[in-house]
Amino acid sequence: MSHDRPILTLTTDFGSDGPYVAALKGVILGYAAHAHVIDVTHRIAPQNVLEAAFVLSSIVDAYPPETVHLAVVDPGVGTKRDLVALRVAGQWIVAPDNGLPGALLRDRSAEAIRTISNPAIRRKHVSNTFHGRDILAPAACHLLLGRSAEELGPRRESLIQLSNFEARSTTDGLIGEVIFRDTFGNLVTNIREKCIGSAPPGAWDVEIAGQRVRGISGTYGDRSHGELVALIGSSGWLEVAVVNGDAGRQLGVSSGTTVWVQQSKLATGARASA
Amino acid sequence: MSHDRPILTLTTDFGSDGPYVAALKGVILGYAAHAHVIDVTHRIAPQNVLEAAFVLSSIVDAYPPETVHLAVVDPGVGTKRDLVALRVAGQWIVAPDNGLPGALLRDRSAEAIRTISNPAIRRKHVSNTFHGRDILAPAACHLLLGRSAEELGPRRESLIQLSNFEARSTTDGLIGEVIFRDTFGNLVTNIREKCIGSAPPGAWDVEIAGQRVRGISGTYGDRSHGELVALIGSSGWLEVAVVNGDAGRQLGVSSGTTVWVQQSKLATGARASA
Amino acid sequence: MSHDRPILTLTTDFGSDGPYVAALKGVILGYAAHAHVIDVTHRIAPQNVLEAAFVLSSIVDAYPPETVHLAVVDPGVGTKRDLVALRVAGQWIVAPDNGLPGALLRDRSAEAIRTISNPAIRRKHVSNTFHGRDILAPAACHLLLGRSAEELGPRRESLIQLSNFEARSTTDGLIGEVIFRDTFGNLVTNIREKCIGSAPPGAWDVEIAGQRVRGISGTYGDRSHGELVALIGSSGWLEVAVVNGDAGRQLGVSSGTTVWVQQSKLATGARASA
Repeated sequence: MSHDRPILTLTTDFGSDGPYVAALKGVILGYAAHAHVIDVTHRIAPQNVLEAAFVLSSIVDAYPPETVHLAVVDPGVGTKRDLVALRVAGQWIVAPDNGLPGALLRDRSAEAIRTISNPAIRRKHVSNTFHGRDILAPAACHLLLGRSAEELGPRRESLIQLSNFEARSTTDGLIGEVIFRDTFGNLVTNIREKCIGSAPPGAWDVEIAGQRVRGISGTYGDRSHGELVALIGSSGWLEVAVVNGDAGRQLGVSSGTTVWVQQSKLATGARASA
Repeated sequence: MSHDRPILTLTTDFGSDGPYVAALKGVILGYAAHAHVIDVTHRIAPQNVLEAAFVLSSIVDAYPPETVHLAVVDPGVGTKRDLVALRVAGQWIVAPDNGLPGALLRDRSAEAIRTISNPAIRRKHVSNTFHGRDILAPAACHLLLGRSAEELGPRRESLIQLSNFEARSTTDGLIGEVIFRDTFGNLVTNIREKCIGSAPPGAWDVEIAGQRVRGISGTYGDRSHGELVALIGSSGWLEVAVVNGDAGRQLGVSSGTTVWVQQSKLATGARASA
Repeated sequence: MSHDRPILTLTTDFGSDGPYVAALKGVILGYAAHAHVIDVTHRIAPQNVLEAAFVLSSIVDAYPPETVHLAVVDPGVGTKRDLVALRVAGQWIVAPDNGLPGALLRDRSAEAIRTISNPAIRRKHVSNTFHGRDILAPAACHLLLGRSAEELGPRRESLIQLSNFEARSTTDGLIGEVIFRDTFGNLVTNIREKCIGSAPPGAWDVEIAGQRVRGISGTYGDRSHGELVALIGSSGWLEVAVVNGDAGRQLGVSSGTTVWVQQSKLATGARASA
């Protein structure tokens, strides 16, 4: 793999209106002026590791091998927590060990995991509140430049796992939650296509906020204007949408709301949502 | 024209807070790692083709030849509608045929139009809900890499036209609407400089939300603090602004509000706005 | 310094939802297709020169020599004001002379200052309302391409200074104000680390919105969940934060709110804030 124009992506909760993102980029360009720096998003809800894990796991398959993904959503900055580098799918994830890198292992096996602890691979002055700029960015650039991951720090065997990154099985289906409300008001859940399995789409009902949606559709166009529809979104997660409308506003829900998937032959009375 | 560092711009309504933009960019970089990917905006109002048409037609003249503009505002995804590539001003527009590419033809002649239909130029798995990533991005990269437009699909003669992209003539002037409210509260209308013609600026009055603005000014500095002003903006469209203020907030209007331009010798009584 | 991949950063109040940023970038790429164009932010509060000065002065040290920073926050567009190029720390700042470039001189000495006035270094048609695109961008690219600063216009000796970019001394400490509220709700003030001096952190109290914070902490982790904390942020400015919370919302304050720093041995009764 050539490093002519190595790709480094950024996923943060820094917002798009202050100096933090640009400071991070300046440090990156100081190490690797030829890097192709791609903003994934800087608008992760503040300190929402689950949302960041959803976003990053949705995009990894779209990136070429040797891409380095730097993800700085770090509620633990200033307290004791590890910083890690994880290799999956021929790419690197550099992040605090707060569940985000662990989420990438649900569908992929770890090719390498390192704790980032080498004091030689960081900025001279390390702020107490901005380890993304001062420790993680230098580590990400170290990997971007094709240098040895062993120099970052010791190998490790495991990563912290988020308890709510995937839905749980119930006796008659699955129980999950909304993990992202997109700009169209579509409600993306933590229920994965693979968990629903190969049953015909009509075999399942979806329940959210006291509303029952019959069947899982192939696309928005299957239903009428204004109707609720459940479908597998473009990243492989179950979504609830309103055709030409805003499901989040119509149902009055956002992240954290409970969602059930049940076999549609079961009783159909609405159940109060959490 | 060299393709050393080809420019691909992105105009979408995906928002800046989820995985969609980054997934699109990952696919693009997989095809063309050396591309210069420029975000025009990802904050077009959801499914607002008119606003996207305004934005794209405002910027084309600022870009060099061979630039490829990928515009994904696609209310029709999942239903029957064509995807097209349009060549104007030595550049390419790649978009659904929903009026956006057609808007570029108001001031420019089509150098080529192709329907995008070749199944060989798309991703292996095509999602029902994300044709931007799976069909349009590969087509845009095909053009970006200097490959033949003929391979995309058959030639076509015409494109859908938006009915409200330009103002209409009335007996005593023009009637149009606000098509974009910018971050300063300036109200950009669909009334073009060329439609007002070469009459002296004082020859026209502008009416919006029951307010009448006398004359079309050269710049904000022509009027006093807090005063309404009508002027031709930097892209050649008539704007209504408040000097050092926010016209959208002061008038309580945004996109869709009716605007009249009338010869100022006519009656000056305020007329109720739509 | 090589110009293989020269860095040009953009700091504006244009917002991220219209054509203005993309028009600026198109012009830049027309002059310097190989430039690495970095968005600092386009979400400076409209016409807030102080906030832009804070953001730019926070990031300059993170960028490599020869970086060109184009900053377009220009309340005076259309009126008489100078456009300037300032060289500090081996980098260039290109901006209206409205206090923003002057702010960079608080900690750094000017290596060169030029008025931008050469009509040969601008776009053919200069809009009355978009000098950023038509005059400043060409000037920034002129410098980015390594051409002579002397060609821009005459040397000048001084720049306008903002009166509130730094806190003022009082008999028992400092009086300043909030200049930026970040996405986490942290309140960044115009009180610099260097102004507080080398006294032990416990020697100072901070007062804001009628609340008194005892001592200046090393990091968020020093205090309990929900508690107010004062600390030196990652860019060297005093911040007021709430541990795992949103100080701006909790205190109901944002930019412009007065902040006092006082020696903690003094009277501790709360004082009404401005």
